[in-house]
Amino acid sequence: MSLKTLEYTDGALILLDQTRLPDEEIYLKLTTAEAVREAICELRVRGAPAIGVAAAYGLVLGVRALDTVTPDAVREIARRLGSARPTAVNLSWALDRVCRAAETETPEQAMLAEARAVEAEDQAACLAIGKHGLELLHSNMGVLTHCNAGRLATTGIGTALAPLYLAHQRGYNPRVYACETRPLMQGARLTAYELSREGLSTTLICDSMAASMMQSGQIGAVLTGADRIARNGDTANKIGTLGLAVLAKHYGVPFYVCAPASTFDRDCPDGNAIQIEERGVGEVALYDYGKAYVDVRNPAFDVTDAALITAIVTDRGVLRPPYSL
Amino acid sequence: MSLKTLEYTDGALILLDQTRLPDEEIYLKLTTAEAVREAICELRVRGAPAIGVAAAYGLVLGVRALDTVTPDAVREIARRLGSARPTAVNLSWALDRVCRAAETETPEQAMLAEARAVEAEDQAACLAIGKHGLELLHSNMGVLTHCNAGRLATTGIGTALAPLYLAHQRGYNPRVYACETRPLMQGARLTAYELSREGLSTTLICDSMAASMMQSGQIGAVLTGADRIARNGDTANKIGTLGLAVLAKHYGVPFYVCAPASTFDRDCPDGNAIQIEERGVGEVALYDYGKAYVDVRNPAFDVTDAALITAIVTDRGVLRPPYSL
Repeated sequence: MSLKTLEYTDGALILLDQTRLPDEEIYLKLTTAEAVREAICELRVRGAPAIGVAAAYGLVLGVRALDTVTPDAVREIARRLGSARPTAVNLSWALDRVCRAAETETPEQAMLAEARAVEAEDQAACLAIGKHGLELLHSNMGVLTHCNAGRLATTGIGTALAPLYLAHQRGYNPRVYACETRPLMQGARLTAYELSREGLSTTLICDSMAASMMQSGQIGAVLTGADRIARNGDTANKIGTLGLAVLAKHYGVPFYVCAPASTFDRDCPDGNAIQIEERGVGEVALYDYGKAYVDVRNPAFDVTDAALITAIVTDRGVLRPPYSL
Repeated sequence: MSLKTLEYTDGALILLDQTRLPDEEIYLKLTTAEAVREAICELRVRGAPAIGVAAAYGLVLGVRALDTVTPDAVREIARRLGSARPTAVNLSWALDRVCRAAETETPEQAMLAEARAVEAEDQAACLAIGKHGLELLHSNMGVLTHCNAGRLATTGIGTALAPLYLAHQRGYNPRVYACETRPLMQGARLTAYELSREGLSTTLICDSMAASMMQSGQIGAVLTGADRIARNGDTANKIGTLGLAVLAKHYGVPFYVCAPASTFDRDCPDGNAIQIEERGVGEVALYDYGKAYVDVRNPAFDVTDAALITAIVTDRGVLRPPYSL
């Protein structure tokens, strides 16, 4: 059985608690919008497409609890859910869709149908990204990836990992290098786990080892996901992505961003307009320095300049620069 | 009181156990060559200059325990100590010096005098590196460093951190960014600790955040140490150094390697000839994947191409490319 990120059943969102992986596969039963918000804030569910789908169902749960469904009440629940994390655009995109469905005669039914459509489209987008991305790979290729843009970041077969799952099915024998992705180790905890669980050849490295792997010629392509893509192609993704893109440029390795069209933010002209979430210092600072004071930074994302991106692999096809989204 | 990496007293090497930092400042009393070897293997003492000095005293301790001092017996103890770690050249360099001192009429006294000379020269070299490096810095400069090339890596004020200590004394107010340095966290455990303990402005970041810091213009220079420098300037240093050098090149930030002349390996034509230590996978693999198999890599060093190095700051002055050592 493949991992299932989430599933909506009657009146509850069943959600795999990713903070417990790979030690335990624990599914939570969430029945309120606030519980879904907490799960997004605490990264129990993460990955731009997955938090979009989770928030859509969270809004459905919130509206079910209302005595009277008014546009203002729906918007307020959506606002709370949307403020859980600032960088991924899929969150507000999915909430907007479900909010619009509330403006019908049967809001609850229409909103649930819209949330289910968001999920179904996510699954279809993953498959489409996989097919388009597969054309960029060849047999026995070493592919580097960062953070987790796989099954666990979506409700389908992933974004950056989708081409790799299809390549594995076709017998291409991809050799995947997973950067561990400090501070929260999504690469080590999630990517290495989900890939090896599906039988793909997976090598775990520290983030700082990527340069050495590229220098020695082991990496034929870098595939990452995206949390928000500006009109000019500048891409926000997990902290560390920018460094990999610079390295890829230096070593002549193609750098591919894989993301559904829902990740494009057409209100955002370029990377400077993207808000970068700064998370708590406790995720980075693991030691007590006694009386000495050490400042700590913890930006959760960075912005990769469009000029460093060889192509953006979307559900609608492979986009090449200059990007104009 | 500043931290003291090690001190030789009558018949014992008193050594700060760096694996316990920053939680505890525990000093070990080592009385045999094997105990010194274990301390080097286990990284209780680390940093190319410091392990050179520790091994020199370890050889003195080993020879004290001999019934009869013969050249073969001395060489055998030196061989054992020298095999503790393969990449840093200072280790074999220091052992060779102390071995040669055994070829005198009073070998024990001559060897101890030579070990003390190695230590004194290390301290002088640190100060000289600091003075030469200081000329490359200016007021309020943001300086990125990796791993620990400070007091704890030497018996003096460090190599890469030496210019920063002098800059701090002169009121330059350097703002140091310390990369945490996975897997063993020498940046977080040692560099952030020793710098903040001495009152320098220190910001701890994950290794993957360096690109973002350079992109935003906060970094005016990168200073790192070195474990072995080939004749053409190719430099082995802690894993992750190469990636920082590529980033620095991309963002137009000067990249300086700081190391004493004892780090030059004139038997080594270029980086391809440098043996890179691969350490145990347990340092990287922090999770249990159950039945799934995940491969793990753990090269402890990488080799930075000379072309990426703006200058090598040595005790003898600042060397610029093309390097011919």
